[in-house]
Amino acid sequence: MGGSTSAILAFSNIGDLLPYYTAIVTLLAVAFYFFLATRVALAHGKFNVKLPATSGDVDFERIFRVHMNTLEWMPTFLVPLWLCAFYLSDIAAAVLGLAWIVGRALYFAGYSKAVEKRLPGFFIQSAACILLFIGAIVGIVMRGPHGFPF
Amino acid sequence: MGGSTSAILAFSNIGDLLPYYTAIVTLLAVAFYFFLATRVALAHGKFNVKLPATSGDVDFERIFRVHMNTLEWMPTFLVPLWLCAFYLSDIAAAVLGLAWIVGRALYFAGYSKAVEKRLPGFFIQSAACILLFIGAIVGIVMRGPHGFPF
Amino acid sequence: MGGSTSAILAFSNIGDLLPYYTAIVTLLAVAFYFFLATRVALAHGKFNVKLPATSGDVDFERIFRVHMNTLEWMPTFLVPLWLCAFYLSDIAAAVLGLAWIVGRALYFAGYSKAVEKRLPGFFIQSAACILLFIGAIVGIVMRGPHGFPF
Repeated sequence: MGGSTSAILAFSNIGDLLPYYTAIVTLLAVAFYFFLATRVALAHGKFNVKLPATSGDVDFERIFRVHMNTLEWMPTFLVPLWLCAFYLSDIAAAVLGLAWIVGRALYFAGYSKAVEKRLPGFFIQSAACILLFIGAIVGIVMRGPHGFPF
Repeated sequence: MGGSTSAILAFSNIGDLLPYYTAIVTLLAVAFYFFLATRVALAHGKFNVKLPATSGDVDFERIFRVHMNTLEWMPTFLVPLWLCAFYLSDIAAAVLGLAWIVGRALYFAGYSKAVEKRLPGFFIQSAACILLFIGAIVGIVMRGPHGFPF
Repeated sequence: MGGSTSAILAFSNIGDLLPYYTAIVTLLAVAFYFFLATRVALAHGKFNVKLPATSGDVDFERIFRVHMNTLEWMPTFLVPLWLCAFYLSDIAAAVLGLAWIVGRALYFAGYSKAVEKRLPGFFIQSAACILLFIGAIVGIVMRGPHGFPF
């Protein structure tokens, strides 16, 4: 009876039930995304593209596109990441999330130099998203609609 | 006592407590959004708009705007969708989420042809978001700040 | 035994375990973001920028950038907001979330008039995001990987 009670008390905070490694990797991804935003801010000055304009210089536009494309992929990354963590595995989601960040860093490094050099990083981050998506489907289907007992 | 214990063990994974149908519909929405991204990629080639540019041809720009507008609405869709699922009803959220995807598909089909033809799909997806928003408010207010017993 | 049973029944809905004030503030943030979208729609008419174009008039472009920049910051805001609420404190996250909305409202009011006037609101919302990010880290690290007892 005592063990049962302590187990119940452990649920007094939702945080005890949530992924740990995926939460850390998600903060890393947000921090990297914030870093990309600072690159755009610097590029506005460096290439003399005055706000509210976000085009007019092709070197600026490549930096701008790195940030914008990363934003465009956020739903495709964050949603499968957390569904995979919740329904399948915290560790698996976190590892694939790290791969996504690595791909995005290569994408930034490449695209900053030339349009074609964005591709290796782009495919790495795409692959990470596809695997997270598959992981989320597997986890949800395995659990089924009646996972919760009452 | 046995029933009580098995119920507690069922909480060992957060996935048992999470929405089921809403999770599936969310993955469908992300898959559709990914499909729109591939339309933009194809349109870059078809209408000869070379990256990093994302404008310069009006036929390209309509496809680009379908994808971008869908991204712009992601917070307005995903946040109420999951708050409605969590605080009110998994099934209701999932059904409205499907309506959103249908609206977005019509929006894509229409906007690809002409600017004015985007409107029917746009209003369907707007209505779905508004209903999800209302559902989330109702669920949160009904539950109140003291839903959790300790 | 009766108390134990009622506590268990309280978990039949995930909503009982979720943040309350943060959920309300999140809906307010989404509502404000939706309001910004309506400002862009009006500005298309007022400044005669015909879709699919989203540039060509500098007064329009400032309104457009308010909305787009708010979208760009959504991952940087929403992710730390909810991780802070889950792992540290619902109230703290909700208060900082309100500060973010205030900053965003000032950003809109300022940027609508002139590019430089966007800055006070911008720094308020940035500070809110940074504090939420720190709060999320503190909460996750304090809890550790073994928060859940089995």
